[in-house]
Amino acid sequence: MKRFYIALMMLLATAFSAVAQSTRESLKSPDGRMEVIFKLSGGTPYYELTRDGKQVIEGSKMGFKMEWRDDLEYHFVVKNVEYSTFDETWQPVWGEEARIRNHYNEMLVTLEQPAGAVESADGRSKTLPTIMQIRFRLYNDGLGFRYEFPMRYDGKDNALVCFWFKEELTQFVMTGDHTAWWIPGDYDTQEYNYTESRLSQIDSLWEKSHEHGGWPWTAFSRTGVQTALQMKTDDGLYINIHEAATLDYPTMHLNLQVEKCNKGHGLYDGQEAAIYWFETHLCPDAAGYKGRMQAPCHTPWRTIMVCDKATDVLRSRLILNLNEPCAIEDVSWIHPVKYMGVWWEMISGKSTWNYTNDYPSVKLGETDFEHATPNGTHGANNANVRRYIDFAAKHGFDALLIEGWNIGWEDWYGKQKEFVFDFLTPYPDFDLPALNKYAHEKGIRLIMHHESSASTVNYERWMEKAYTLMNQYGYDAVKSGYVGTIIPFAEGHYSQPINNHYHYAIVEAAKHHIMVNAHEAVRPTGLCRTWPNMIGNESAMGTEFRERIHPGHTSILPFTRLQGGPMDYTPGIFE
Amino acid sequence: MKRFYIALMMLLATAFSAVAQSTRESLKSPDGRMEVIFKLSGGTPYYELTRDGKQVIEGSKMGFKMEWRDDLEYHFVVKNVEYSTFDETWQPVWGEEARIRNHYNEMLVTLEQPAGAVESADGRSKTLPTIMQIRFRLYNDGLGFRYEFPMRYDGKDNALVCFWFKEELTQFVMTGDHTAWWIPGDYDTQEYNYTESRLSQIDSLWEKSHEHGGWPWTAFSRTGVQTALQMKTDDGLYINIHEAATLDYPTMHLNLQVEKCNKGHGLYDGQEAAIYWFETHLCPDAAGYKGRMQAPCHTPWRTIMVCDKATDVLRSRLILNLNEPCAIEDVSWIHPVKYMGVWWEMISGKSTWNYTNDYPSVKLGETDFEHATPNGTHGANNANVRRYIDFAAKHGFDALLIEGWNIGWEDWYGKQKEFVFDFLTPYPDFDLPALNKYAHEKGIRLIMHHESSASTVNYERWMEKAYTLMNQYGYDAVKSGYVGTIIPFAEGHYSQPINNHYHYAIVEAAKHHIMVNAHEAVRPTGLCRTWPNMIGNESAMGTEFRERIHPGHTSILPFTRLQGGPMDYTPGIFE
Repeated sequence: MKRFYIALMMLLATAFSAVAQSTRESLKSPDGRMEVIFKLSGGTPYYELTRDGKQVIEGSKMGFKMEWRDDLEYHFVVKNVEYSTFDETWQPVWGEEARIRNHYNEMLVTLEQPAGAVESADGRSKTLPTIMQIRFRLYNDGLGFRYEFPMRYDGKDNALVCFWFKEELTQFVMTGDHTAWWIPGDYDTQEYNYTESRLSQIDSLWEKSHEHGGWPWTAFSRTGVQTALQMKTDDGLYINIHEAATLDYPTMHLNLQVEKCNKGHGLYDGQEAAIYWFETHLCPDAAGYKGRMQAPCHTPWRTIMVCDKATDVLRSRLILNLNEPCAIEDVSWIHPVKYMGVWWEMISGKSTWNYTNDYPSVKLGETDFEHATPNGTHGANNANVRRYIDFAAKHGFDALLIEGWNIGWEDWYGKQKEFVFDFLTPYPDFDLPALNKYAHEKGIRLIMHHESSASTVNYERWMEKAYTLMNQYGYDAVKSGYVGTIIPFAEGHYSQPINNHYHYAIVEAAKHHIMVNAHEAVRPTGLCRTWPNMIGNESAMGTEFRERIHPGHTSILPFTRLQGGPMDYTPGIFE
Repeated sequence: MKRFYIALMMLLATAFSAVAQSTRESLKSPDGRMEVIFKLSGGTPYYELTRDGKQVIEGSKMGFKMEWRDDLEYHFVVKNVEYSTFDETWQPVWGEEARIRNHYNEMLVTLEQPAGAVESADGRSKTLPTIMQIRFRLYNDGLGFRYEFPMRYDGKDNALVCFWFKEELTQFVMTGDHTAWWIPGDYDTQEYNYTESRLSQIDSLWEKSHEHGGWPWTAFSRTGVQTALQMKTDDGLYINIHEAATLDYPTMHLNLQVEKCNKGHGLYDGQEAAIYWFETHLCPDAAGYKGRMQAPCHTPWRTIMVCDKATDVLRSRLILNLNEPCAIEDVSWIHPVKYMGVWWEMISGKSTWNYTNDYPSVKLGETDFEHATPNGTHGANNANVRRYIDFAAKHGFDALLIEGWNIGWEDWYGKQKEFVFDFLTPYPDFDLPALNKYAHEKGIRLIMHHESSASTVNYERWMEKAYTLMNQYGYDAVKSGYVGTIIPFAEGHYSQPINNHYHYAIVEAAKHHIMVNAHEAVRPTGLCRTWPNMIGNESAMGTEFRERIHPGHTSILPFTRLQGGPMDYTPGIFE
């Protein structure tokens, strides 16, 4: 294909050229129907994927644009290829089934830019080999692969120690103009309706796809889309691109590229067709970087699910299987619940989160809430919460979420204030100890609410005290929220530092035996296998946007958002 | 002067024009020698300062460039002017003298952009007045003034609630080409040699002023300088521009402007002279803003010290007096100390902070330090520290600082790693409990060291545990450090969010009865009056750069850096 020629020409044009090594390695799925082929073409790594001998992903580049050194794109040689197989059945802490089979064949390709073949600012690449490994795991229902960077290989230090990505170069080259169910690529929100279209229509549907979407939103391309991206080929194959186990790394979006090319292979002959491929677009940090790495380390798994039937997509456990086993020893305290919420009545406008209208502006530690005039519409008041507790107890619910219980809601929204909430201080009409006691007597647990106002700086300052307060009064679950523009300033919701924050919140919560249901956080990538206290998340347009949601939206979510883990979709509402 | 004409012409050119009000208000110092004059000229506020009837600061603009609304620059009317006087003597917790007199006359000017006179994105300025107050405090030895934004005034809400500055417009117009002692304006370091030059020479000395300076450095202008800026007029007057009580606000730098103008006043006649003035240049946050404000609030004090003699500059307590009284009730635990340090031997190359050379790269929680090979040069080892304790006890020192006691020093520097140190885990050869016991038996306190590697994100995650560890073993002072590029990414060392971090560290430390001596933090502005546990700071080029320091550097520091508070200059070294 044309891109291969371009890559080859660029290679020939470079002053230094390693001995161009051509390699072809292949791995089959346990059932033999899927095959992944790894190629090194002129020193550049590519992969392809087939099912039943037919191509699913055409030759697609792999590698990285780098800061402070030559890219991980050219001058590679294959150092080693190892094959293995794995088959186990594991038991999730919770989920749709009691046992999950994790069965794959694996191919680990070790690539080297030989010492002296590339330049680096620290000079290490002059005398040490640059080692990048690509680990492929092929399942019957899909492929996972990731990049790995060992500290040492074959008795030698890796030239890579601390290194920064300017972009990940992983491509996903499609075999045609598939039908896709997509939401726009965005650094800050996933709250979009799904659009169903051909790949070729994504560009022209950009404006329409943004109608009635979430806020704040930050687009990067007219053809950018988020994952999990569900597609269907004209042959009836279901292809789903996502990622698994995204930790200490930015979120992956896909940017569609379209190129006119030959209908057949060979030199361009003027007979036009189009070729569609996705390039990886990582969410940058505030300084524009897309991954700050330190060996030994690896990227998340890039996943390509391939199924004959739509229902098989729902049955796949590819994403969970690619995550690490449970990291929590005692999981006895982790349990899904059916809960109600003092929440919908604020969304629907019957009551308010805030307690007073006395001030145009409030500041914690300065504003006197004790002597403020109640506005009469505050939802999280003692009488109302008791009413909910009574109802929940009578009708078999386990728990009750209460929003607007804590001071600061008077002007929290959209102001980019670093310090809005302390997560500790109730409004005067919310008797936290008494309400918990009343609830517990009726067999109901209260669910804590921590709206961070997207200030992760502030949330982390209060987190330990906030979790300790929860322990003190018997809360075992928190709905956290990240509404608004992220603080630290200039970070998006899905950059590496902010993804690290979400994970930090989960790990710290686990120490306190607290389950987390994060809203407006990064969409999950199966991490609930490793951290089953990550009991739910939002990360999609849910029922709160009932007036904006298009017909069919909910039926797409299981193929897309839910591939990464459960969603707090909150479908039961009464108006 | 010419600028007045420009401002006036711009005013006339605007479509809307409030009734141009001209006002002149004046305030004298207690001894009557100084006078500050406030003028409203065509709706724009200006101030002037005289001493013995001679101008020190010529007519200088005041105000702000704003986001989401018209600037706080035009359309002002004077709503009210209040005068008062103040005279008290207060007792600092520590310092050069037991009692300090705080004696000033005050003028509070309340300015209003009338409802409807200006536009704002939130629409409030249509129906509500925009209120900005300027509070002047005139001492015998200088002027302080700050901007204040009340929530309400005269029974009406202020149109300003949450608002963002794009720049502060405060000018300092000089009366001539003064001699100045300055370091370059910088978002990340103050570690520069002082340059003595005429104002007119600053531009041409830019490269030279950067020689042998600190790292990382981030310049913003060839004529940017830092405060405290010491100047001397040809008439022998000493003028010092600085700021006091910088809290929840970015650091102020000064950007010199030079304009050819008439020698006399009046329309430009081609007879050239030069006029020199400084514009305020605030350190931006990662998103480029320069102050995120919420009424009621105020800026720091802008200070102009004016003295007849150089020694009077050293005797002035202007900066301390403009800070708030002590905020700590029990100050019995706060006490300056004379200390030694296991620190210089690492700086001078005799030993190392790190413990092992086994790895090209280490990660806390993964790297096995217990079984690593000691490099034989680790300074903070038990035997060496005991030797220092013995020496300190014998020679009348109070305390001993030990750097390099905690794991992570192997590759901490310049990598922009979010997580480098945990501030809790000693190297295998540093027995923290035993060394503290040994020191205490000899009457010596150990001083803790927290090098944050400039990752305030990480430091805040560990701070509570780190301070608690200090309490557990009897440390009552910490030297903290901020070497490197700030994380959160794209923040500088002196932006509002990072200034907030330094303050957060001081306040949290006070809760633990811990004294703080922060290095590479923002230069102090007298906050040690309010938080006397802020026992010292660095914020200048100290003896560690002995090979770079120019003759005379140390003699300038008392006029500049030390105006804001004590410096951990560490002048006693043995090589």
